[in-house]
Amino acid sequence: MSTPATINLSNKLSQFSDYWNPRIAAKYNGNEVRLVKLKGDFTWHSHAETDELFLVLEGALDIEFRDGVRHLDRGEMIVVPKDVEHRPFCEEECHVMIMDREGESNTGVNPSTRTRDTLEAI
Amino acid sequence: MSTPATINLSNKLSQFSDYWNPRIAAKYNGNEVRLVKLKGDFTWHSHAETDELFLVLEGALDIEFRDGVRHLDRGEMIVVPKDVEHRPFCEEECHVMIMDREGESNTGVNPSTRTRDTLEAI
Repeated sequence: MSTPATINLSNKLSQFSDYWNPRIAAKYNGNEVRLVKLKGDFTWHSHAETDELFLVLEGALDIEFRDGVRHLDRGEMIVVPKDVEHRPFCEEECHVMIMDREGESNTGVNPSTRTRDTLEAI
Repeated sequence: MSTPATINLSNKLSQFSDYWNPRIAAKYNGNEVRLVKLKGDFTWHSHAETDELFLVLEGALDIEFRDGVRHLDRGEMIVVPKDVEHRPFCEEECHVMIMDREGESNTGVNPSTRTRDTLEAI
């Protein structure tokens, strides 16, 4: 076997600048560790087969749920259970680590103009 | 459904001070997001049924593998594939987010004085 690689999250994030286009930084137990830059509004969606983990690395992220909004600052995380509708948004650019089941669309069961079905590894 | 809770990693870490005793901060797709403070030497071990993800939140962590050592600073992560022997160590206190399959022992298939079979939620 070879020693696994270390992954510097800031270095990976510095390699791209577009919003709402997650890159795959690592795989873990059939899940993808994704890095993404966000700014503006995402679309309402849910994931039928996967929870979704958000960890804010820089800036701040809001996530709207049907019964309220959660605000996440840097160093805060949330796990959105599968089937729970949600809509991320942020006024200013933020950098987020997201985990989803391998191959999951970023808009889950609700395709939209934000959908990215095929993600690049970084 | 109720809106999921936000989890502030620093606040959770401030609630305990002992080393090598991971707390469960969240669950995601049958995995546990664990927070732990480390200082000193861990024991050689591997996990038969789970990859193990380490993300350094404060300080620096080294992980020895059979063919080399990886050094992880704050903001760096690594995924140790299942069955790969490894041994974390650090001279100074560091704070780490670890992911393992739910219920996995922290020493995997190699019980030692560091084994914590039952972990508290935090």
